[in-house]
Amino acid sequence: MKAYLTRRYRFCAAHRLHSEAMSEAENLATYGKCNNPHGHGHNYLLEVTVGGQVDGQTGMVCNLVELDDVVGREILSRYDHENLNTLPDFSGKVTTSEVLAEQIFNILRREFHAAHLERVKLEETSLNSFEYTGGAEMR
Amino acid sequence: MKAYLTRRYRFCAAHRLHSEAMSEAENLATYGKCNNPHGHGHNYLLEVTVGGQVDGQTGMVCNLVELDDVVGREILSRYDHENLNTLPDFSGKVTTSEVLAEQIFNILRREFHAAHLERVKLEETSLNSFEYTGGAEMR
Amino acid sequence: MKAYLTRRYRFCAAHRLHSEAMSEAENLATYGKCNNPHGHGHNYLLEVTVGGQVDGQTGMVCNLVELDDVVGREILSRYDHENLNTLPDFSGKVTTSEVLAEQIFNILRREFHAAHLERVKLEETSLNSFEYTGGAEMR
Amino acid sequence: MKAYLTRRYRFCAAHRLHSEAMSEAENLATYGKCNNPHGHGHNYLLEVTVGGQVDGQTGMVCNLVELDDVVGREILSRYDHENLNTLPDFSGKVTTSEVLAEQIFNILRREFHAAHLERVKLEETSLNSFEYTGGAEMR
Amino acid sequence: MKAYLTRRYRFCAAHRLHSEAMSEAENLATYGKCNNPHGHGHNYLLEVTVGGQVDGQTGMVCNLVELDDVVGREILSRYDHENLNTLPDFSGKVTTSEVLAEQIFNILRREFHAAHLERVKLEETSLNSFEYTGGAEMR
Amino acid sequence: MKAYLTRRYRFCAAHRLHSEAMSEAENLATYGKCNNPHGHGHNYLLEVTVGGQVDGQTGMVCNLVELDDVVGREILSRYDHENLNTLPDFSGKVTTSEVLAEQIFNILRREFHAAHLERVKLEETSLNSFEYTGGAEMR
Repeated sequence: MKAYLTRRYRFCAAHRLHSEAMSEAENLATYGKCNNPHGHGHNYLLEVTVGGQVDGQTGMVCNLVELDDVVGREILSRYDHENLNTLPDFSGKVTTSEVLAEQIFNILRREFHAAHLERVKLEETSLNSFEYTGGAEMR
Repeated sequence: MKAYLTRRYRFCAAHRLHSEAMSEAENLATYGKCNNPHGHGHNYLLEVTVGGQVDGQTGMVCNLVELDDVVGREILSRYDHENLNTLPDFSGKVTTSEVLAEQIFNILRREFHAAHLERVKLEETSLNSFEYTGGAEMR
Repeated sequence: MKAYLTRRYRFCAAHRLHSEAMSEAENLATYGKCNNPHGHGHNYLLEVTVGGQVDGQTGMVCNLVELDDVVGREILSRYDHENLNTLPDFSGKVTTSEVLAEQIFNILRREFHAAHLERVKLEETSLNSFEYTGGAEMR
Repeated sequence: MKAYLTRRYRFCAAHRLHSEAMSEAENLATYGKCNNPHGHGHNYLLEVTVGGQVDGQTGMVCNLVELDDVVGREILSRYDHENLNTLPDFSGKVTTSEVLAEQIFNILRREFHAAHLERVKLEETSLNSFEYTGGAEMR
Repeated sequence: MKAYLTRRYRFCAAHRLHSEAMSEAENLATYGKCNNPHGHGHNYLLEVTVGGQVDGQTGMVCNLVELDDVVGREILSRYDHENLNTLPDFSGKVTTSEVLAEQIFNILRREFHAAHLERVKLEETSLNSFEYTGGAEMR
Repeated sequence: MKAYLTRRYRFCAAHRLHSEAMSEAENLATYGKCNNPHGHGHNYLLEVTVGGQVDGQTGMVCNLVELDDVVGREILSRYDHENLNTLPDFSGKVTTSEVLAEQIFNILRREFHAAHLERVKLEETSLNSFEYTGGAEMR
């Protein structure tokens, strides 16, 4: 019996969409007001989905405390109340939610081993969300 | 690296569930109060999911502006603040959300090319939602 | 000790904003696409707030079952899955949410006596809500 | 044309996470405050997803009335306003949401035949949700 | 310049509606399935509203950290993951949300002094909420 | 017959809580991680409530189009996708939501005349909201 659990986390961060590979005019044409020079910000809603066999003794896929520990230490302490553009993680990258979701997925795949990481979903605003599954079909 | 993005849109419309292939009694038995003769309506929440490679330069699956343009022109201007039963799109069809979701999917597959259309999800009320994936397994 | 309780109800209805006191051009200028001739519709979220002394024996302002009975019989059965413009309640009136909220308030004030009706709030879409308090300051 | 529909239901229940296969100290270490002896409770949000061909005549995957009947009779009447730990369904089991989701899935697979049961999703709090698909890949 | 701030907290608890002042038959007639002997539970959403002058130097009504400290120590640690009926706070009382809201209001009025406590609002389920203002008009 | 209508708007902005009247150590002690030097950001949810007599001919308190025009031109174009700390509106002020709500209220009171401005409510995150009523009792 394999089950899936999804846990929600929230963090607030500033960013500016700007690609060093493009001219100022191209940046403005591509990102519009998201390219405003002083940046803006979001309340990010992060959903982490993990899957695995349900342990016969505990009745759990994994202990949420372990997931909270890894996400708190590796993700929230790194990005919450920060300006993403000033962080080394995004050096030479554009701080879109696609890139941020991939970054979070890769960190969690490396650091969390109590169950199988299935998907990272990042809601940037109430209108936009982004999912990354590490190459697997979207779930 | 393939990622998925989901964008939410809203529109309001009236409809009446009524099948020309059934008698009045069968219609009433099948659709209950949704068959009321003068119609009723909903605030539809539409979620469009597209997937694709993340562009190395822009950090995006596709530009949301392009998706907004197509959905605005092809879907919202067609269905928002309309009575679905009076539209040619639903001639000879029943205006269930299953049929409406399929219709929206087919229009978007034809008109939107900046990324791969994965799924259309239509929330008719806070209790009911419907998904159409064009024949692929549900995502 | 006076407390307040708010109960949420939902109903779906069609309507068209159109005033018999105005010309077609004035109607279109005033209501825009809400004036579309075949109507459109909404999932209305209705919040009813009542207040009163907390009963020492039951610990309740009033029994929610009684409120549900009155709202179900007098409001939901009257408006759910209907076209508001075809109902006698709105003869000669415009079916705006302001008018609908006042109508619901007046019906409930007349029919519900187990606690004091404080406010009716009607959410027409996730962006718009309307409140009527029967002349008291908004709460 | 295959489509999917998801219907939401709500029920309230008490439970205590406690495994008979573990000592008191192990239970406390595993479940933390969820192991508190007198129990606590939740407003569970249940989402049932079914899929199937859209009927050409009715425009529906299945009639929601039939799904409501089965879920009401087999799930809500069994678990709503109950203490899960006192029910025979969970004798010798831990009342985690993983186990509860599997239990609901198995009951519905046995009792509902109007469309194919795809997934049961159970939101325990606004931060945690659990999905069970009966062995299929998560959808 | 007086402003108001509202902070949301969540806790999970079990309870059973049962009045010692009534017979078993009266309890059942009054509370219905909320009177089920083994109890049930809820995810309570607590909103605390405080008001005051905005400090010219800090730009704040009060520091949310102080409010979080008091609510965490005096409310959440007392009620979260507990069975309300077993707590001394509700000895001889019925654990309705009206009574719980009054209890929380009285504790906070006694313990929190950094701004004026205006209102406690308790959402028991997504359909029901309860407010207590200590005798002031509802806000 | 006086009624109230509330309209929701959303904007995204960056800010940093920092008071020029305090030392660095005091700023850190007061604002914690909200004082991080590079700033962070939020999805602000703005609710504007206006009240007035319901017009007998139109059935409306005021035309939402007019409110949208003023809020769009005076608020959203000013703050959306901006860094609040770099704007002249907040020169010498701290960009708390209390100060931002007061600023929005004062602009709208000056610019919007089609109904009486009752309240501005600003939700900074899903946990925090702030209200300003221009000196009137909170509504």
